[in-house]
Amino acid sequence: MEKIKININAFGYPMPVVLVGAQVENKPNFLAAAWVSRVNFKPPAIAVALGKGHYTNIGIEKDKSFSVNIPGVTLVKETDYCGIVSGKSVDKSGLFEVFYGDLKTAPMIKQCPLCIECKLINAVGMQMDTLFIGEVVSAYSEEKYLTAGDPDIQKINPFILSMPDNNYWSIGEKVGQAWSCGRQLK
Amino acid sequence: MEKIKININAFGYPMPVVLVGAQVENKPNFLAAAWVSRVNFKPPAIAVALGKGHYTNIGIEKDKSFSVNIPGVTLVKETDYCGIVSGKSVDKSGLFEVFYGDLKTAPMIKQCPLCIECKLINAVGMQMDTLFIGEVVSAYSEEKYLTAGDPDIQKINPFILSMPDNNYWSIGEKVGQAWSCGRQLK
Repeated sequence: MEKIKININAFGYPMPVVLVGAQVENKPNFLAAAWVSRVNFKPPAIAVALGKGHYTNIGIEKDKSFSVNIPGVTLVKETDYCGIVSGKSVDKSGLFEVFYGDLKTAPMIKQCPLCIECKLINAVGMQMDTLFIGEVVSAYSEEKYLTAGDPDIQKINPFILSMPDNNYWSIGEKVGQAWSCGRQLK
Repeated sequence: MEKIKININAFGYPMPVVLVGAQVENKPNFLAAAWVSRVNFKPPAIAVALGKGHYTNIGIEKDKSFSVNIPGVTLVKETDYCGIVSGKSVDKSGLFEVFYGDLKTAPMIKQCPLCIECKLINAVGMQMDTLFIGEVVSAYSEEKYLTAGDPDIQKINPFILSMPDNNYWSIGEKVGQAWSCGRQLK
């Protein structure tokens, strides 16, 4: 069990794949992102780190809003496409059916099982990325993705990204109940 | 495909489960966390949101350092235990074999396949959480978890958390190659 130093750029943990939406030049635009996390319990807030040059950032900064859309495995190709092609050169607005919520400026994706609408509350400038922090204003889903009114990860069927090998993976089997399975070590 | 509004507190995406390490009162302490994300490409940086009352935060703020340890599925109970029991009342330092790296103040876990040592560069105060942003100083793993020198998610075998059902899940099967499988939509 001897540890060795490895490349600091090699992260080996599962990263949730989402599509970040914003309105740019009066058109909805979506960018695939995996550097995303919830960052506050109440009110719920979510942060997403985007490379500074991204087209989507223009809309986030202008309208002070963005959406986080969680695609299911069936959307893996469309999601990847949104990470390959920039809105600067290609109009991605026709790729999905788009809807708007309370903020009116955060385009969301009907095909995504879960869509989260965020009001920008902070933008932390890093060297190469901007960490956009949004307070969740509304969340949208469909009956078929819910269990007892809440999102059900097995019904949503999201996928994660591993780096640096750059693979997408589905979610596997249940391996424990949180805030519970560790009790036996008490 | 009609969307309905759901509870804004109900997040349905996969959250990577990690153990955040810090030295508190001269003892290593570890806290289970799942609100974690990479936030800068170069130099690599990682952010973790921790509720303001956590014992671990004291050490992060004092030493300006922390570690992010990625446990494998075999450590699910120990990890969960570190999310149930606070270092305020229970000494968790004996739960794992601990080692230190370049910073000397960020305790890391030998049993974890991947350990990332971070220098605190920013702390963004949210209403209930603090978002600790750390620049990665060093990363540690073992030959058996690597492929061509980089962490291999299948060998590491990490797990994710889903909320609000609070379940842990393993990683499933490969569903696509990132920055590649979407090319056919061009």
